[in-house]
Amino acid sequence: MTDLPTQQRRSLLIKPEVVRVEPADVPSPGPDQVLVEVSAVGICGSDVHYYEHGRIADFVVTEPLVLGHEASGVIRAVGSAVTDRTVGQRVALEPQETCGRCRQCQAGRYNLCPQVQFYATPPVHGAFAEYVVLESIRAHPIPDSLSDEAGALIEPLSVGVWANRKAAVEPGDRVLVTGAGPVGLLAADVARARGGWVAVSDTNDYRLQVAAQRGAHATVDVSQGSPRDQQGEFDVILECSGAAPAVQGAFESAAPAARVVLIGMGAATMELPVGLIQNRELWVTGVFRYANCYPAAIALAASGAVDLDSLVTARFGIEEVADALTALRRDPHTLKPVVYPRR
Amino acid sequence: MTDLPTQQRRSLLIKPEVVRVEPADVPSPGPDQVLVEVSAVGICGSDVHYYEHGRIADFVVTEPLVLGHEASGVIRAVGSAVTDRTVGQRVALEPQETCGRCRQCQAGRYNLCPQVQFYATPPVHGAFAEYVVLESIRAHPIPDSLSDEAGALIEPLSVGVWANRKAAVEPGDRVLVTGAGPVGLLAADVARARGGWVAVSDTNDYRLQVAAQRGAHATVDVSQGSPRDQQGEFDVILECSGAAPAVQGAFESAAPAARVVLIGMGAATMELPVGLIQNRELWVTGVFRYANCYPAAIALAASGAVDLDSLVTARFGIEEVADALTALRRDPHTLKPVVYPRR
Amino acid sequence: MTDLPTQQRRSLLIKPEVVRVEPADVPSPGPDQVLVEVSAVGICGSDVHYYEHGRIADFVVTEPLVLGHEASGVIRAVGSAVTDRTVGQRVALEPQETCGRCRQCQAGRYNLCPQVQFYATPPVHGAFAEYVVLESIRAHPIPDSLSDEAGALIEPLSVGVWANRKAAVEPGDRVLVTGAGPVGLLAADVARARGGWVAVSDTNDYRLQVAAQRGAHATVDVSQGSPRDQQGEFDVILECSGAAPAVQGAFESAAPAARVVLIGMGAATMELPVGLIQNRELWVTGVFRYANCYPAAIALAASGAVDLDSLVTARFGIEEVADALTALRRDPHTLKPVVYPRR
Amino acid sequence: MTDLPTQQRRSLLIKPEVVRVEPADVPSPGPDQVLVEVSAVGICGSDVHYYEHGRIADFVVTEPLVLGHEASGVIRAVGSAVTDRTVGQRVALEPQETCGRCRQCQAGRYNLCPQVQFYATPPVHGAFAEYVVLESIRAHPIPDSLSDEAGALIEPLSVGVWANRKAAVEPGDRVLVTGAGPVGLLAADVARARGGWVAVSDTNDYRLQVAAQRGAHATVDVSQGSPRDQQGEFDVILECSGAAPAVQGAFESAAPAARVVLIGMGAATMELPVGLIQNRELWVTGVFRYANCYPAAIALAASGAVDLDSLVTARFGIEEVADALTALRRDPHTLKPVVYPRR
Repeated sequence: MTDLPTQQRRSLLIKPEVVRVEPADVPSPGPDQVLVEVSAVGICGSDVHYYEHGRIADFVVTEPLVLGHEASGVIRAVGSAVTDRTVGQRVALEPQETCGRCRQCQAGRYNLCPQVQFYATPPVHGAFAEYVVLESIRAHPIPDSLSDEAGALIEPLSVGVWANRKAAVEPGDRVLVTGAGPVGLLAADVARARGGWVAVSDTNDYRLQVAAQRGAHATVDVSQGSPRDQQGEFDVILECSGAAPAVQGAFESAAPAARVVLIGMGAATMELPVGLIQNRELWVTGVFRYANCYPAAIALAASGAVDLDSLVTARFGIEEVADALTALRRDPHTLKPVVYPRR
Repeated sequence: MTDLPTQQRRSLLIKPEVVRVEPADVPSPGPDQVLVEVSAVGICGSDVHYYEHGRIADFVVTEPLVLGHEASGVIRAVGSAVTDRTVGQRVALEPQETCGRCRQCQAGRYNLCPQVQFYATPPVHGAFAEYVVLESIRAHPIPDSLSDEAGALIEPLSVGVWANRKAAVEPGDRVLVTGAGPVGLLAADVARARGGWVAVSDTNDYRLQVAAQRGAHATVDVSQGSPRDQQGEFDVILECSGAAPAVQGAFESAAPAARVVLIGMGAATMELPVGLIQNRELWVTGVFRYANCYPAAIALAASGAVDLDSLVTARFGIEEVADALTALRRDPHTLKPVVYPRR
Repeated sequence: MTDLPTQQRRSLLIKPEVVRVEPADVPSPGPDQVLVEVSAVGICGSDVHYYEHGRIADFVVTEPLVLGHEASGVIRAVGSAVTDRTVGQRVALEPQETCGRCRQCQAGRYNLCPQVQFYATPPVHGAFAEYVVLESIRAHPIPDSLSDEAGALIEPLSVGVWANRKAAVEPGDRVLVTGAGPVGLLAADVARARGGWVAVSDTNDYRLQVAAQRGAHATVDVSQGSPRDQQGEFDVILECSGAAPAVQGAFESAAPAARVVLIGMGAATMELPVGLIQNRELWVTGVFRYANCYPAAIALAASGAVDLDSLVTARFGIEEVADALTALRRDPHTLKPVVYPRR
Repeated sequence: MTDLPTQQRRSLLIKPEVVRVEPADVPSPGPDQVLVEVSAVGICGSDVHYYEHGRIADFVVTEPLVLGHEASGVIRAVGSAVTDRTVGQRVALEPQETCGRCRQCQAGRYNLCPQVQFYATPPVHGAFAEYVVLESIRAHPIPDSLSDEAGALIEPLSVGVWANRKAAVEPGDRVLVTGAGPVGLLAADVARARGGWVAVSDTNDYRLQVAAQRGAHATVDVSQGSPRDQQGEFDVILECSGAAPAVQGAFESAAPAARVVLIGMGAATMELPVGLIQNRELWVTGVFRYANCYPAAIALAASGAVDLDSLVTARFGIEEVADALTALRRDPHTLKPVVYPRR
């Protein structure tokens, strides 16, 4: 630890549409924490939303905030009580800290911990920084075969892992993924890796092409008709768009006893087909981040079942965070911009 | 079978608000069926709805229809292939016939069989008749300790069994039942019999008193405040009212990872809190009748865990079906009117 | 905390058949711990086994050990970081401390934590002492309606809760409990409180009488024939004897797809009917203590669904621990001796 | 149906080691049945066992018996009530007929039907015949992309599907398959297709090579040390050998809370590590054939996730059934011999 710098650079969201690189102290890891030098950070839709609006629902950016929560890095120091990680390990960062003591944590649902602290959610800083700290158990080692970018994208892949676990996708299931953004594409990848037959729907022809290239068994351009009209009914719906028409169309295409997982974030309330939920005895749930998913996500990426590198569409240095956050605005073929804080 | 009559009386719904007793042939059981002399038939809200409106959603009464689907009786004849039932057995009637061959039937979800035929759902006749036939496996023997009325009310109790099974209620669960009509009261009884701590909510003070008398651990008068405000959050919500405000209040009172079962029938679509479903990772489902529940319901009634007789508030003969169907209109303390077709 | 003594008395197992009361410091709670003044401690079969043999399998008493792990008490001090408990609260003690960080803990299976420390398991001291410390989240508040003895017996009741949860006992299930010792009786109580129909088997007529008095629906004297011969087949078997013949008989009485939970501790290996497990597709598992069960156990005791006080058959002071540990030897009607460390 | 022959050839097991082709009537399908012209039939270990010993456990061949239950074919006629199948469809045969009425059938566990009739299990004839009949719902259509051999091998693949479903294998799981015969290889294929990381163990080096070629992530030569010693512990064990040492080794390599599925048939009873089942809270079950698995198996084969054709090691005509049944004896590299009844 002798050669660690004491100062670092990090990118702060000052106010909507304004980010600025500023110096900061390199943090010291607590007893159960590790210090990670950040290698790569993916841009998530929530980062873009904070950048554009300064808030997401009740979470308001009132002080300058470091964004970015899809990150990989290398452990540079470990806390005094850490025995399960070593300096030099390459890791994917699971960007949440939980109390470990509440009913939810004790039951294994730590993502629902009422005291959860999640990177890049005010007032908790994220990973557009050279160095971050987090609990050692949330720094998940990755094999050398995974790139830094893949390590970063373990985070959105974990969302797909979690949604598929809730839906219990298995061979023989017909799975509809509505919305072919990065999360939808990864949810579809996981569904396929679990043996499901997967159709992906969107209105964006480019994204449907990407879905097909990644191995989706069918694509549905919903501007041409509903998923049900085009592909029949489905045992599982992974709703990744957050758009009310897609959500409603998702329910219509659900087979009796289907599982419907609401992943995409949209309006706080929506008109839902209660009658269908009853008559078809659908199971409906949503996901709030994930719990105990990183090892599975890493295994899927390491085995080649899910290709993460091909999602990366642009690369940026720490001074280019604004460009990274506006990449999708400027190029509709953008899937996943990645920021390299050390560049 | 030599002393069976060839003619019987049955009560037909001719048009809204008009029922009439007419003679009919006593049916012959098919090879896998039994002929049942009907002892008692409970009045369900759906019977009242057909009586008042001549339809429920897409199910329209276009020909005279025998109502009534909560029935008990005595087997008077068995079909040629029946080996599992005998003449003289007292039975609770599970009033549905399914194909046995479709994907849903094969998977054990026969209530979702697309070809299901259900008593008193047009064009299938119900049980306001002296004699009915049904498949032998749907005529469930009941012990002598159960009254004819209890045998009839195994049907709504099975709805409670099914809803609780979907919610997987168990000791330690805090259960909220919204709506204290007969189905809500029975759903609460089953939740209690599974070891749950049960609160029942309604706006009707009389019904809340009944809930308390039946053993609910708490009652919530929602005119005085929300269930959450009065009793905190719940692990399970059994929504039995079908009323949009109750449904929405139900979601608000759901704890993280709670299970919400929509039982009460109401509007086809409702504004639901999608954000809550996601942030709390609620499990939401509905019930459509029941499958494989009669033996459990009979066991609960036979063990004394659920008292069915006390739900019966009025008794009627076959000529008084109109009175039975309008009992609730005339007496707000009505819970379950029962018709005796042989009287 | 000013009036807390600095010295206490505790009972140590010195070697097989020798216990001795010795003075010791009153411990100070760590930041996340509470200090509990012990009210009552039940005697478990494992305490007796350590007393008689000085070991259980690989766990050997090499240093003097405080026995006792079924305990209730009153919080007398709280650690610096404790916000969820207060001095004066009456609590049931969940006598295990886990790492909170391993895969098992994170998944909600903290009882399987490889670093678990459990009271009265060498080298971890138990509760035959005036004061003990434990993590605040393991000190579960109990209502005033529960006696000190009931608070202590929440521990074995939790074993019954856990076993029933694994078996997913529900209304309509036919449940066989083999072995009517305290754990078997409590497992039967919980099965009944979940709505199961419960038969209890044993060779001890007195214990079968107790089982019947507690509400078992049937009892089976296995000296008169197998459970299957006497009562048919069962959907759930809760094996609480640990005796090889009972285990084997348990499997024979299992219905297709039955769940068999091995609770009683016996030989490390047994001849099991693999063919039956396959042909009937039985689900077989075992329990190792419990996780997340105390709140449910307390709820069952508080609601009156399970009566714990009636299990207590004899009471002893701290100087009489040897008498408590040999009570069963001396009186075959012994069920649960209780030690009061402050007497 | 006009051009159907009235006579066919079939191969009968007369007594151990003696099979003979004899003429027989072409059967007529019952109302719910189809008549299938058999294309290909795989040889299963049970066929070999009947051939060599004339019995399996309590099932004794007392009358000449047609063996073979892994079959594909083409529908040549349909019964009077069949609306879901048509003449000319290529199908995989699910070789069981169940009552549809018992508790197991109604619950969706039709493989546990006490009245199940299974091909090639005395006294029910199997598929070494030109024509067979079976219920239409058990004749599962296969796409043109699947070969006749693949259609036949849907049967053992369904065993793998069923075992994996019971084990709920999913991404992140470490899966050990013990025994690399055809069923083990297919179970491993399915585990991989569900996203599991799969190790296969055997003593036969050739079979381990095949496992590796099929995509197993690791192989374990148990003559070199236990699976645990070589590869650590596993979340899922699919025991496909039926050999007592392998079964016992399987348990030793089980992680806490692991699922152990006993697939291979061996001794009726075995010495099992009850202590491990308890201390690690393992879930242990077995499989008896399968239920509701053919569509999933067909989907896995059709998507390319599982390659069935490469399992076929030798091909035989109807007159060569004895050669097919002794192929493994003569050539240790035999995996799956296939009989073509029309040749």
